[in-house]
Amino acid sequence: MAEISATSGLITFINVFSCDPENQQALLDRLRAETEEVVGKLDGFVSANFHLSTDGRRVLNYAQWTHLDAFNAMMAGEQGRAMIMAVHEFTQSIDIHMYDVAAQYEAQQPSAQLDAQPVTS
Amino acid sequence: MAEISATSGLITFINVFSCDPENQQALLDRLRAETEEVVGKLDGFVSANFHLSTDGRRVLNYAQWTHLDAFNAMMAGEQGRAMIMAVHEFTQSIDIHMYDVAAQYEAQQPSAQLDAQPVTS
Repeated sequence: MAEISATSGLITFINVFSCDPENQQALLDRLRAETEEVVGKLDGFVSANFHLSTDGRRVLNYAQWTHLDAFNAMMAGEQGRAMIMAVHEFTQSIDIHMYDVAAQYEAQQPSAQLDAQPVTS
Repeated sequence: MAEISATSGLITFINVFSCDPENQQALLDRLRAETEEVVGKLDGFVSANFHLSTDGRRVLNYAQWTHLDAFNAMMAGEQGRAMIMAVHEFTQSIDIHMYDVAAQYEAQQPSAQLDAQPVTS
């Protein structure tokens, strides 16, 4: 299970793919295949966590890396271009950003009526 | 630290706020205040995890709940309307969706050159 942590030192990419509901599963399948065949084998890869919106209109990948050298080199080449083209078949737009975890809050006990505790600031 | 897990049974909301870089910190501060004063005290709240994009143009909240009854009741009232108005002062658009964790991959050892292992299917 991936952990969301402000102190892990990992690089976080959150990639939001917009799609029509009839293409959501095909888009997920393509992204999974790319992860299994290429991206997940790259040096620096830590985790990919694919989410499906319940309305069918988004596929989101919460991805973590220790470093991006191998990923950037792959994406700059023919293989990266082919991957992007393949994903665009099923998506309307892609919103990709690198993020830092800035602040986290958690209930002291899930489901209990307790104040949220900041665990980072 | 929040865990991303396909088997937790939690409800996941991922809220992406678009902003101008000069408003990113003010937007984060407002969302943190709302979490500390209102949202994090609601029954069903599990975690809020605020991320800042390194380009300054996004604030993203990866939020987890056990149930949404208290949240929905609050949002339907005057307090919810005031919260939305307050956030809109600093954001251009908000993309809010409920998600299921559909598939996860992780390297067997972070930073090692190993194949990604699917941990869920």
